[in-house]
Amino acid sequence: MDEFLWGVIGTGNIAEAFAEDLHLAKNAKHRISAVLSREMSTAREFAEKFKAPDSFDDLEQFAAHSQVNAVYIATPHPMHFEEAQVCLKHKLPVLCEKPMGISKRQVAEMFETAKQYNTFLMEAMWTRFLPSIGMVQEMLQNEAIGELRHINASLSFLAPREEGSRYFEPSLGGGSLLDLGIYPVFLSQLLMGKPTNIHSSIKRSEKGIDENCAMLLQFGADKYAMLESSLITQTPNTATITGTSGQIIITNPWNEKPPSIVYEKYHGVKCEEPVQWEGRGLQFEVEEVYDCLRQGKISSEKMSPEFSLNLIETMDTIRHQHSIRYPFE
Amino acid sequence: MDEFLWGVIGTGNIAEAFAEDLHLAKNAKHRISAVLSREMSTAREFAEKFKAPDSFDDLEQFAAHSQVNAVYIATPHPMHFEEAQVCLKHKLPVLCEKPMGISKRQVAEMFETAKQYNTFLMEAMWTRFLPSIGMVQEMLQNEAIGELRHINASLSFLAPREEGSRYFEPSLGGGSLLDLGIYPVFLSQLLMGKPTNIHSSIKRSEKGIDENCAMLLQFGADKYAMLESSLITQTPNTATITGTSGQIIITNPWNEKPPSIVYEKYHGVKCEEPVQWEGRGLQFEVEEVYDCLRQGKISSEKMSPEFSLNLIETMDTIRHQHSIRYPFE
Repeated sequence: MDEFLWGVIGTGNIAEAFAEDLHLAKNAKHRISAVLSREMSTAREFAEKFKAPDSFDDLEQFAAHSQVNAVYIATPHPMHFEEAQVCLKHKLPVLCEKPMGISKRQVAEMFETAKQYNTFLMEAMWTRFLPSIGMVQEMLQNEAIGELRHINASLSFLAPREEGSRYFEPSLGGGSLLDLGIYPVFLSQLLMGKPTNIHSSIKRSEKGIDENCAMLLQFGADKYAMLESSLITQTPNTATITGTSGQIIITNPWNEKPPSIVYEKYHGVKCEEPVQWEGRGLQFEVEEVYDCLRQGKISSEKMSPEFSLNLIETMDTIRHQHSIRYPFE
Repeated sequence: MDEFLWGVIGTGNIAEAFAEDLHLAKNAKHRISAVLSREMSTAREFAEKFKAPDSFDDLEQFAAHSQVNAVYIATPHPMHFEEAQVCLKHKLPVLCEKPMGISKRQVAEMFETAKQYNTFLMEAMWTRFLPSIGMVQEMLQNEAIGELRHINASLSFLAPREEGSRYFEPSLGGGSLLDLGIYPVFLSQLLMGKPTNIHSSIKRSEKGIDENCAMLLQFGADKYAMLESSLITQTPNTATITGTSGQIIITNPWNEKPPSIVYEKYHGVKCEEPVQWEGRGLQFEVEEVYDCLRQGKISSEKMSPEFSLNLIETMDTIRHQHSIRYPFE
């Protein structure tokens, strides 16, 4: 089996989760060979923990000298743009945490660079590749709920209010929409396409980010999605996909590893199917990157540039509806 | 104890429920003394079932000759306006099923007439008077969930598609919003006031009514309500009231007699309190009418003209957003 070497930029929670799930990817022998952090000591600590030979504290050095097959960018979102640009220009394939950039302008430029350097780039929307989402798509294809009519999905996290918390800090790309809201928006666009109409309501913090965000998206004449993200209140964190003859509920936490998927036919059968896989589930996006690269692709069809551009466009629209601007925009 | 005589206009399901709950109202000995229906045989059948002495098949006759203390209007909503106008002009106090009228223009005129004839008029929003709603209001007053942030409520009913079904028939005031959506809109306005911004999405039927309706209402800078009504899909039919420190869930069916109210403090206590009362719960609005009349009022403070006008204004706005017009408008 091929050995596939990853460079990891960032050493936070999601980078750890990625490193822990990596060995579960089945299409190659994936391992981490280089780590980049602002602090060399942090990079070395992470590298040691996951048996990576190389540590870096400089982006250009990392891009020029790390011997990796692909890079996983796991830093806070305001940093993605520059990191991806530098890696792509060194022809390093990139799997970039979501949101890929903080605006459509950024994301479009990133995909332009990928094209120009003929190098792979994909948004790390790991939920896209979870078996639970595949189950739902299959049920919809089999018309298990008739015609799709609405999706109700939410994601909340009661974020700590500590000073400097990235969740509430504009300079760190804070706000509920980019951090959490991207998941329900992703799901609605995966199952319904690009929204034709976007309405939203937010609670603005004193520093000017969205502490919560309620969205009503319309998809053509007969479908809608009611979506929520929140850093300050609790939401169900389920996803309910409703059709003319039944509904599917992905239980809490719907975007990660939910205990089960509930399927209900109106006036009929009700089933609850347990969901299970090893690890947290980041291995599935890892497999996608490897499969795409092996086929010489510079983008994924399952998580395509067009999809990522639509996703950030929706979030741009919502932010603009409430004049939320980041300092680095 | 006083005897209080009711005239009932209409003999459908809700009229039956009213008649069955009437004896449960505790502030007087309430009974039905007159029934009006388009068909005399139907009126007589209903009158016999509920031991009412008088039956009518003519509105003017009913208003002029029935010996009643108040009238309950329980016909389909397009008929409310004329029936209420005639009763009020005969100085008969009126409890009128919701929606009181099909437009703000109608409802405003009805309250004008009530004022002109110094006669009581109230919208029969029975949910307003349920002990479950009182429990929630008390919890909010006691700041059980901190500052209120959002309400999520829905109401759906998989309506039969039979030919002539009033649910889908424009000439009978069909559509999900006026029939079901009025409940979640009512709840949001009861707890949050008048919406400052209204967004909505509907699925329009071939005949031009809303088969479902999704609403995102904003209330000032920091509150919103996500509401749904549907005749064609299933929704949770719960009401979740969410604040900065916890949430309250009125279980399904939240607008009637729910099994329980769930209260949850973030990172803390979770309680489930059973809800129970005799009958369906229409007796509580009956008590309100009697109490108001005994005090010489021509309107209720708990379900005021202003509240009813705001309610229908919101629904007018939503209908106009989608150019839904009824043939009799």
